[in-house]
Amino acid sequence: MKRKICIVLTVRGNYAKMKSIMREIKNHSNCELQLVVGGAVILHKFGNPVNIIEADGFEISEMVHFLVEGGKPITMAKSTGLAVVELSTVFENLRPDIVMAIADRFEALAVAVAASYMNIPVAHLEGGELSGSIDESIRHAITKLSHIHFVATQKSKERVIKMGEDPQNVYVVGSPTIDLIRDLNLDLDFDVFEKYGGVGAFISVTKNNYIVVSQHPVTTEYEQAGEQIQETLHAINDINMPTLWLWPNMDAGTDEISKGIRKFREKYQPSHIHFFKNFAFEDYAKLINNAAVLVGNTSSGIRESAYLGVPVVNIGTRQNYRERGENVIDVGYNKDEIKEAIKKQIAHGKYSSNHLYGDGHAGEKIAEILSTCKISVQKRLMY
Amino acid sequence: MKRKICIVLTVRGNYAKMKSIMREIKNHSNCELQLVVGGAVILHKFGNPVNIIEADGFEISEMVHFLVEGGKPITMAKSTGLAVVELSTVFENLRPDIVMAIADRFEALAVAVAASYMNIPVAHLEGGELSGSIDESIRHAITKLSHIHFVATQKSKERVIKMGEDPQNVYVVGSPTIDLIRDLNLDLDFDVFEKYGGVGAFISVTKNNYIVVSQHPVTTEYEQAGEQIQETLHAINDINMPTLWLWPNMDAGTDEISKGIRKFREKYQPSHIHFFKNFAFEDYAKLINNAAVLVGNTSSGIRESAYLGVPVVNIGTRQNYRERGENVIDVGYNKDEIKEAIKKQIAHGKYSSNHLYGDGHAGEKIAEILSTCKISVQKRLMY
Amino acid sequence: MKRKICIVLTVRGNYAKMKSIMREIKNHSNCELQLVVGGAVILHKFGNPVNIIEADGFEISEMVHFLVEGGKPITMAKSTGLAVVELSTVFENLRPDIVMAIADRFEALAVAVAASYMNIPVAHLEGGELSGSIDESIRHAITKLSHIHFVATQKSKERVIKMGEDPQNVYVVGSPTIDLIRDLNLDLDFDVFEKYGGVGAFISVTKNNYIVVSQHPVTTEYEQAGEQIQETLHAINDINMPTLWLWPNMDAGTDEISKGIRKFREKYQPSHIHFFKNFAFEDYAKLINNAAVLVGNTSSGIRESAYLGVPVVNIGTRQNYRERGENVIDVGYNKDEIKEAIKKQIAHGKYSSNHLYGDGHAGEKIAEILSTCKISVQKRLMY
Amino acid sequence: MKRKICIVLTVRGNYAKMKSIMREIKNHSNCELQLVVGGAVILHKFGNPVNIIEADGFEISEMVHFLVEGGKPITMAKSTGLAVVELSTVFENLRPDIVMAIADRFEALAVAVAASYMNIPVAHLEGGELSGSIDESIRHAITKLSHIHFVATQKSKERVIKMGEDPQNVYVVGSPTIDLIRDLNLDLDFDVFEKYGGVGAFISVTKNNYIVVSQHPVTTEYEQAGEQIQETLHAINDINMPTLWLWPNMDAGTDEISKGIRKFREKYQPSHIHFFKNFAFEDYAKLINNAAVLVGNTSSGIRESAYLGVPVVNIGTRQNYRERGENVIDVGYNKDEIKEAIKKQIAHGKYSSNHLYGDGHAGEKIAEILSTCKISVQKRLMY
Repeated sequence: MKRKICIVLTVRGNYAKMKSIMREIKNHSNCELQLVVGGAVILHKFGNPVNIIEADGFEISEMVHFLVEGGKPITMAKSTGLAVVELSTVFENLRPDIVMAIADRFEALAVAVAASYMNIPVAHLEGGELSGSIDESIRHAITKLSHIHFVATQKSKERVIKMGEDPQNVYVVGSPTIDLIRDLNLDLDFDVFEKYGGVGAFISVTKNNYIVVSQHPVTTEYEQAGEQIQETLHAINDINMPTLWLWPNMDAGTDEISKGIRKFREKYQPSHIHFFKNFAFEDYAKLINNAAVLVGNTSSGIRESAYLGVPVVNIGTRQNYRERGENVIDVGYNKDEIKEAIKKQIAHGKYSSNHLYGDGHAGEKIAEILSTCKISVQKRLMY
Repeated sequence: MKRKICIVLTVRGNYAKMKSIMREIKNHSNCELQLVVGGAVILHKFGNPVNIIEADGFEISEMVHFLVEGGKPITMAKSTGLAVVELSTVFENLRPDIVMAIADRFEALAVAVAASYMNIPVAHLEGGELSGSIDESIRHAITKLSHIHFVATQKSKERVIKMGEDPQNVYVVGSPTIDLIRDLNLDLDFDVFEKYGGVGAFISVTKNNYIVVSQHPVTTEYEQAGEQIQETLHAINDINMPTLWLWPNMDAGTDEISKGIRKFREKYQPSHIHFFKNFAFEDYAKLINNAAVLVGNTSSGIRESAYLGVPVVNIGTRQNYRERGENVIDVGYNKDEIKEAIKKQIAHGKYSSNHLYGDGHAGEKIAEILSTCKISVQKRLMY
Repeated sequence: MKRKICIVLTVRGNYAKMKSIMREIKNHSNCELQLVVGGAVILHKFGNPVNIIEADGFEISEMVHFLVEGGKPITMAKSTGLAVVELSTVFENLRPDIVMAIADRFEALAVAVAASYMNIPVAHLEGGELSGSIDESIRHAITKLSHIHFVATQKSKERVIKMGEDPQNVYVVGSPTIDLIRDLNLDLDFDVFEKYGGVGAFISVTKNNYIVVSQHPVTTEYEQAGEQIQETLHAINDINMPTLWLWPNMDAGTDEISKGIRKFREKYQPSHIHFFKNFAFEDYAKLINNAAVLVGNTSSGIRESAYLGVPVVNIGTRQNYRERGENVIDVGYNKDEIKEAIKKQIAHGKYSSNHLYGDGHAGEKIAEILSTCKISVQKRLMY
Repeated sequence: MKRKICIVLTVRGNYAKMKSIMREIKNHSNCELQLVVGGAVILHKFGNPVNIIEADGFEISEMVHFLVEGGKPITMAKSTGLAVVELSTVFENLRPDIVMAIADRFEALAVAVAASYMNIPVAHLEGGELSGSIDESIRHAITKLSHIHFVATQKSKERVIKMGEDPQNVYVVGSPTIDLIRDLNLDLDFDVFEKYGGVGAFISVTKNNYIVVSQHPVTTEYEQAGEQIQETLHAINDINMPTLWLWPNMDAGTDEISKGIRKFREKYQPSHIHFFKNFAFEDYAKLINNAAVLVGNTSSGIRESAYLGVPVVNIGTRQNYRERGENVIDVGYNKDEIKEAIKKQIAHGKYSSNHLYGDGHAGEKIAEILSTCKISVQKRLMY
């Protein structure tokens, strides 16, 4: 009997994280992939990433709708509750042997709750990291509900074990997004405007002449999200280089950021910024690999950029405490600080590659472990 | 401004745990009590404990209905999801400064999720304990979502700190149920049949001549719950002493236990067993204090019985790994083992009092700490 | 392509109503049966009727859990809301061509809402009847959401058309439970205690020497449900004939009735009453066919009893305004009225058969119509 | 005791409908207004209309979050289910004497279900109308759950009575939006760009020189919503007059329309169209009163425009069967038809006022009736 491994994707970033894992599970002789998509992955306004996933040859097992509109803490809570209600039905229908919970988003906890309450073993990806914000609490709570732990770094492993998990169930596999980058031709070999449309100015984009911006709301500071984005917008406006700007993830504070960006656009009509909803991860990797600098608070500035050596300006608290390479300059929500750091990074240029977050074989390792590992539903604190 | 402390009671056992805390918060000059009741606390079939609570002078702020019928893992998950949906509205209405999450039941996690996602600090009671079953995972997951920790024992404190919580926020206060017992006249000074009705044989109950049974389903073994209860029923039937039997908590497996008991009653019509839905905690303390032996898997066999020196036969895995006094004999789900242990305990009689789970001042300590402690919503793993 | 007909059973009475329809759909060359079970049909405490359904050879497509515990109007509303949430997922998974909504229970409206909102045609069984209570409103609201109407009587057809439905879509088919009775040997050819267990006194049951009682809560009078049942209990106690008593349906007021019955049993320990959770419809038909009198407020007293000529004492408002045969005596919630009517009916004995509710071919007619009828999702008031 | 009248606003158009009613209830000596807001009324992306409501002096009693993201039939159903779950809590907290259900949106049925199931009388506004789409079914289903009916026209009254409602409970009051228009100075006395911002071209707007467009998705045709809006966009582009364009309501199909508009804007960058999220109703009335023509499928083209004599081009099926004045030209989803009709209406100019939908005193009449009418929770079909 093949082991049925259920993966739940709820936000576009999940797909890049899981793609190599999904591929390896699908191709593994002792595993069967069950793919559930929901949340932002099936919403137009986030670019309907499910289309890309299906185009890549993955079959969807079930769709779940659980996002309650509002983008506020109360709706984040309600969405999570509704996700547990919906996912329990999905797990009843699919009867997986293992469910994977990804990282630290609010709905990832819903995945872990529904599965563990139904006595289905949970495998958690990217436990043991530090970040700040409510994600920090969610990530560790998922660890305590999970039975198997796939962590990115040795330090993360140590933290997961310190939290009382059985060392036999904690595996350092690196960050699976590095898998996607490893064999990729990282040249700018496509026309981003033709392929992705987007809105805003029509700009020229060539190696090292442009900036990429990706800034998400910090859920514990969601009321400041609107002001925070203004600092970045004005900094980028002053720098006045061609800029590719990604819309934020859905989260408490998303509406404030979206509104802030829209108002800014209407008022300043910036002639050097183009906005995008979504990129295939591979294209995103090419774009940041060839950018003069990556600005914002995306985790890709910490992980993939370490591997690629991309100069990064990391803004605010969202990536606090995450292990980082020498390619990152940290700044506050302050236009001048941001500007200065951008200039410094442009002047520095590319850094050398750092394998802090893996060597590009995470997917293979994970599929192999999932196909063979011993699993006990009953957990026990190891002290 | 008084601090608004919100307590959510969802099962009859919660009330005994929280009563001294509620009283101290209500009477504290810098605190305001917000009392939310829901789940089994407002159900007829569990004796509608809310009536006792109101009779004791506590005012109900809001009621929440979230229990999805079924008593299976999937409905336990759905109930938890619905509880998050409902409690987020409650917290939006009440705007508490601190929410208390109690111990380790499935809906306790819903309390912690709803509050922490809404940036409301969570104070957790009874973290750091070991127990087995899904409760074990739930308890530690709540710890990771909580900001203040009130633990019963020094060992629990050490575990909570090892899990990465800030030692400054972990307080050993003992078990608050001991507070209720401390000043109580523990004689059998009431007629249990007159006061509580119940169903079954009319038996004579005097000091040391009777047994108390309280056995709940173990959620990870819920499919065996029906068989497990048979062993206990037959053991008690063979012993043939007057027995006061408490119906189980609602949980995955409750229906199996209830059905098992009902069938047994119909078939054997035991002339020495009387069944009860609910006792006020104080009356329950008197009943176990004067019992020849307490049988089952209730946590009161571990905690209150240690303080009272009650001889206990603890069945199965539900209290695994919980620190216990010398008053407890552990047995498996086996009629003969159970019978033998009961006889041994009856022969031994009362044990001396053990303060392992507190000295009876937990409520005061907790109210005082809640009224003054510094709180930061942002958590951080302490390593 | 076969038409996929989805039937949702949520309470034990649904199965008897739908059994001949389900059988005919299953056997029809142009139809495929999709069977969804949920609510009380999958609960232990209502006898888990799903087991009977599967034993009869029907395959379950999906299970839905939506009943929120409480038995109060607010939980009836919440259960309905949750049913819409759950059923929309089921319909998305099954993609039926037609969904059947049954009669007038609170969750039947959830079936009609979920399907009609998802542009799936709804076929309604038993529209156009009058009954009183919230069922009255629910039934007609379902009519307004439905596209095809299968009614029991000519008068019901007239009412549905008056409400503005297209006469082309209204079909008089009779009551499908009559189908089950038509070819049945209606003798008392089984031992009800051996087959169904139940609880209570062990009594002798032979043709015409016993009473059957079936009394459900009236949702608009749910607060009186406890008192109402007392009148019936005392009347039956006084009559002192062997009595087979059926537990009530789940509904606002169920807990009050259950509690009333339990208390009565404890107090009076009646030696001539035996209580049952559930009968296969066929056995139930045999039991009422041979009873001296059927007492309560079940619709079977109005429909099947007309066909069978069973003497009926109908209590209270639940069957108000429903067309009835000469076999029914209506009484209030009053012990003396009930007693007197019971005596009168016992004295009268069997009535002659009345085809007011059909001739026993409803299932065939419905399956044939569903397999061929033209369906437009867009409705229009016909005036 | 004042009667507590609960009004639930879930979409911006609700406020204009209810404003005069809310004002009259608030000022009535025997009524107390309970105002619940939710859905699109509290969402940024629909302009957060709650701010306008509070600025007008109305106090919010409770907020409800129930919209599940997706804009598809399945999420419309789920949103409705979640609305019932949420509103039942609201009604439990507020304990209204009467709840008002407005017109025919999907969540209006949730209001009627939650209230009627909880035995709270429902007053329905705008029953008895004909429209096409699922709204048609929803409206009549609400009628069957409602106890008091406030209809706009004599014909609507006849239909409601034909559906079996008690004539004593059906009141012709006209359309309450006419109340708001009656005493208004209808000149263009404000700068729409300054007051409302919006996005798009900066255009000159003077009496009769501009077009207003408002086109919503038709839920039964939601998959065509994207194509349908293209026809209108191209027609308006060809006409090339200054145009004020309103974003659509949230509904199945909204995302398609929004996407269609955004793509069109990016591709054609039309220099004569400006897009708006929301207007205060009074300003909207001024804008259509001075427009050369109103284009789309908004009900204001049928009701308010009749009173104001605004030339209207009504597109598609959304307003089918609604009584209309001579000021309306109906066309299909066809660029050329739309263009021709726009030209014809511009050539014709203003029509004379038609009181088909009321005389401007609806609010007073409704408040007076609600304060005094006899109410029975038990309904009965009147034939």
